[in-house]
Amino acid sequence: MSNGDSEFALIDWFRQYETDHPRVPVGIGDDAAVVSFPTKQDTLITVDMLIEGVHFTVPPATARQVGRKVLAVNLSDIAAMAGRPLAAVVSVAASRNRGAEFVRQLYLGMKNLADRFDVSVVGGDTNVWHAPAAVSVTVLGEVTGTRPVCRRDAQIGDWIFVTGTFGGSLAAKQFEFQPRVKEAIELHQRVNLHAMTDVSDGLSTDLHNILDESHVAAVVYEQAIPISDVAKQIQDEKTPLEHALSDGEDFELLFTVTAKDGQSLLESPPFDILLSRIGKIVKGCGCQTQDAVGNRKELHRTGWEHKL
Amino acid sequence: MSNGDSEFALIDWFRQYETDHPRVPVGIGDDAAVVSFPTKQDTLITVDMLIEGVHFTVPPATARQVGRKVLAVNLSDIAAMAGRPLAAVVSVAASRNRGAEFVRQLYLGMKNLADRFDVSVVGGDTNVWHAPAAVSVTVLGEVTGTRPVCRRDAQIGDWIFVTGTFGGSLAAKQFEFQPRVKEAIELHQRVNLHAMTDVSDGLSTDLHNILDESHVAAVVYEQAIPISDVAKQIQDEKTPLEHALSDGEDFELLFTVTAKDGQSLLESPPFDILLSRIGKIVKGCGCQTQDAVGNRKELHRTGWEHKL
Repeated sequence: MSNGDSEFALIDWFRQYETDHPRVPVGIGDDAAVVSFPTKQDTLITVDMLIEGVHFTVPPATARQVGRKVLAVNLSDIAAMAGRPLAAVVSVAASRNRGAEFVRQLYLGMKNLADRFDVSVVGGDTNVWHAPAAVSVTVLGEVTGTRPVCRRDAQIGDWIFVTGTFGGSLAAKQFEFQPRVKEAIELHQRVNLHAMTDVSDGLSTDLHNILDESHVAAVVYEQAIPISDVAKQIQDEKTPLEHALSDGEDFELLFTVTAKDGQSLLESPPFDILLSRIGKIVKGCGCQTQDAVGNRKELHRTGWEHKL
Repeated sequence: MSNGDSEFALIDWFRQYETDHPRVPVGIGDDAAVVSFPTKQDTLITVDMLIEGVHFTVPPATARQVGRKVLAVNLSDIAAMAGRPLAAVVSVAASRNRGAEFVRQLYLGMKNLADRFDVSVVGGDTNVWHAPAAVSVTVLGEVTGTRPVCRRDAQIGDWIFVTGTFGGSLAAKQFEFQPRVKEAIELHQRVNLHAMTDVSDGLSTDLHNILDESHVAAVVYEQAIPISDVAKQIQDEKTPLEHALSDGEDFELLFTVTAKDGQSLLESPPFDILLSRIGKIVKGCGCQTQDAVGNRKELHRTGWEHKL
């Protein structure tokens, strides 16, 4: 194969998109990149891999959409800790029959979103094989405020909140969602966030993750769940509420705060994005939903479970 | 599939191997891990992916060997910057027909090496599909001394050094090599390292990388190349010297220093591992070899070229 298609040529192509940034004294092209953190806060690190045939199919998805999404899910993870994302590295196993253009498009989709969040793409490893595509992105961020916000700190009596609406992400939002980085940092500045996560595996599953880590239980008010317009229109065996509780890939924030902080957020929301109080943290284990007349039933993990 | 094989169960299994480390206030199991760097030096980050059928085949390789190697190549990259590795995250696409045991073995191979280098494995993303395995590891490290050692700073007049011996890695060493982390840090303390890289793609190719980045040329003394015993015994169309110059995966250090520093290293080596002066940096571009009687010829990139 010509040198024009070699990894060295691809690295040269990548490097033309690199912009000098005081945060990146050494970028793409050395054995490792060097990142100079603006503050001396602790470092956040997260990794997510998307694989063809499981998380995406090309077509209908484009390489650009895949590149955007694999970075976006990582930015959402940093947001879930109320962190500020700073740098990313990517590794790709691409199908040989698609050629280098697939990788270039993937990278452009990633770069475009990275620029919008002031994230530097500082390195990568590109490989080809005779198999479907696998794309892994690692994002580094820094802690904001006085500490990272974990899943394990929900307190009994806390109110449970979510941003945005839920359900039906598969229809469109899964490639277009906005990682709630700015919103998480604003919330962290404004109130004392106890526990937080992003909703990737489904609202019920991600809520269970917080409950399990915090050793508490929850009651969720059915009518308070903000259901997306898309989920309301789906015609299948599930109700819109069931879609909202289980579909996943909403990439909204799910968090708990004291009742006092919750009241303050409801009275004067810190941003335009919908903020809903959907339940409360109680003693015990597990999770129940409560309908309009006060009837309760168990809410299991009904979302996406990663099977091995 | 039973919950026992789900990602949640695997995360629980991973967590039993986590040891409390003051450097990792939040480890596996949250949206992102939190790493507290011991010093306030700049952060090094590198990523490498190994893919089945290209970089390894199982069998004859075992999942443990693959896990060890994918971390080791990243540690070697951090060593190449004279950095100290601190934390790693891993993402895996594993073949469904192998089950969770493959992933556990992969992780144990990685964890074993990580412990030896005091590197914390702080997070991961595990996926399964009906395709060969792809394993990506990202390692974070910190700069040691006053600066990272890059490829771009070779100076005219420098002496070129390597650690260890070269050639025939495919026979055995590719799964057993020792990343030269300690040696690189010792060299960095002892002398003023100008340019450095690790030899992954072949001695000639990696030397060309330094020359291109530094805008200089080199003369390499044929008789000074330390050829491995394995390479001397290979019976094929290549000479042992050709194997040493092109085989790759030696994961030794290749670096340049002033003649004065070079003399000091030869007179009193900082460690037991073989240290050889193999050439000098000269003005111009490209690279030549010089034989015993002074005849020179062009040395091209004869190592592994990543083709796309």
